[in-house]
Amino acid sequence: MTFAATILTLYPEMFPGPLGVSLAGRALADGKWSITPVQIRDFATDKHRTVDDTPAGGGAGMVLKADVLASAIDHARRHSPDAPVLAMTPRGKPITQARVRELAAGPGVTILCGRFEGFDERIFEGRDVEEVSVGDIVLSGGEPAALMLLDACIRLLPGVMGAASSGAEESFEDGLLEYPHYTRPVEWEGRTIPEVLRSGDHAKIAAWRKQRAEEDTRLRRPDLWERHVGARDQSASGARHRTKDLGS
Amino acid sequence: MTFAATILTLYPEMFPGPLGVSLAGRALADGKWSITPVQIRDFATDKHRTVDDTPAGGGAGMVLKADVLASAIDHARRHSPDAPVLAMTPRGKPITQARVRELAAGPGVTILCGRFEGFDERIFEGRDVEEVSVGDIVLSGGEPAALMLLDACIRLLPGVMGAASSGAEESFEDGLLEYPHYTRPVEWEGRTIPEVLRSGDHAKIAAWRKQRAEEDTRLRRPDLWERHVGARDQSASGARHRTKDLGS
Repeated sequence: MTFAATILTLYPEMFPGPLGVSLAGRALADGKWSITPVQIRDFATDKHRTVDDTPAGGGAGMVLKADVLASAIDHARRHSPDAPVLAMTPRGKPITQARVRELAAGPGVTILCGRFEGFDERIFEGRDVEEVSVGDIVLSGGEPAALMLLDACIRLLPGVMGAASSGAEESFEDGLLEYPHYTRPVEWEGRTIPEVLRSGDHAKIAAWRKQRAEEDTRLRRPDLWERHVGARDQSASGARHRTKDLGS
Repeated sequence: MTFAATILTLYPEMFPGPLGVSLAGRALADGKWSITPVQIRDFATDKHRTVDDTPAGGGAGMVLKADVLASAIDHARRHSPDAPVLAMTPRGKPITQARVRELAAGPGVTILCGRFEGFDERIFEGRDVEEVSVGDIVLSGGEPAALMLLDACIRLLPGVMGAASSGAEESFEDGLLEYPHYTRPVEWEGRTIPEVLRSGDHAKIAAWRKQRAEEDTRLRRPDLWERHVGARDQSASGARHRTKDLGS
């Protein structure tokens, strides 16, 4: 099955862009995913092909019109009825690796890219659109965010990464950052690869990696760490309850 | 002054990619910023031009070699001595709009893009490199993240956005999400633009927007809201102390 990406954008020429190269590019050539950029302007209804208008209540910039956006979304839905529609916006819910996995396991995704000041808010009331944010920064448009989100999905599609790299042991997969990596040379500028990694003792190596993943998450990302500890405590308490039930 | 971006990558052909189009593309053509993709492979020292090796301690994937990365970084530093070096990695510190503003106000940025399993950790001990993360998702490489970060910087360069869009009133600038936008038609599919935005009463409009920005942040991003309230309380308490000092 081909993962079908539809991109609603004012700049279709930005796609596939960097996704036409390397891992994603080979997967595209192999038919493991497809991309259809759709020009939002094609859904304008006046002779000037207007897609935006000034913000109600005043202020700088222009706002993308709900009626034009709705026509573009309806068009995408006719062609990919089962693909969720995501809008890239800093007002959205921060994307997670768990959501990326869900998307990658599905039929595809339709991504709505904003420009200017953003979308007429009514589009989110009138259509089933998931507002998604990638990092707390402001872009000139949703396109770079869409490329990034697609890249994250594509690498998880069956057969795209080598069998060896399942993606199971990497950052965020268990709510932790990944442990640090080292490779040859053993000594570089006076710094050596940690002894344990050269020991050949697989149990010790696994323990060291787990400890480093936990320590680095705690120090670098207290927000992730708190969530991880909360989830762990909850599942431990759940396990205790289950054990009790079995014992009684 | 031209904002100079140097990209250390195994896929220089990905740049400028989407940044050659639209706002960023015009700014590039106008000389407001420049981009120099540098092939990391050019700094390999063997005849096979090897850039990676297997992870110490075992495991899937390949790790980028510290010696090769160091040569590439040192090269970039000779050409852009004052530009900070950022590495895109999920183990990094989440990027913020405040950091983007700092970068955009500086001479440029050197961005190190990883591929495979990541970087030999010693590069972060041996060189002054800022580890940066854009969203808690895993990419096939740092390139899509670098494009996104650059886009965020470029739009803030002098003369790139119209004078009307200063970027002062947008998401994250005051630690809040931006308020929702509306534009014509006044009624769309039975939904009307909120009355207050059509009132012409600028004070009321400003109050409504502030209230919606606060409410949406509280509901959608409790993490941002907590930080915002913390900062507000602290500055209010600072103001009280100062008033007291003046009074005594």
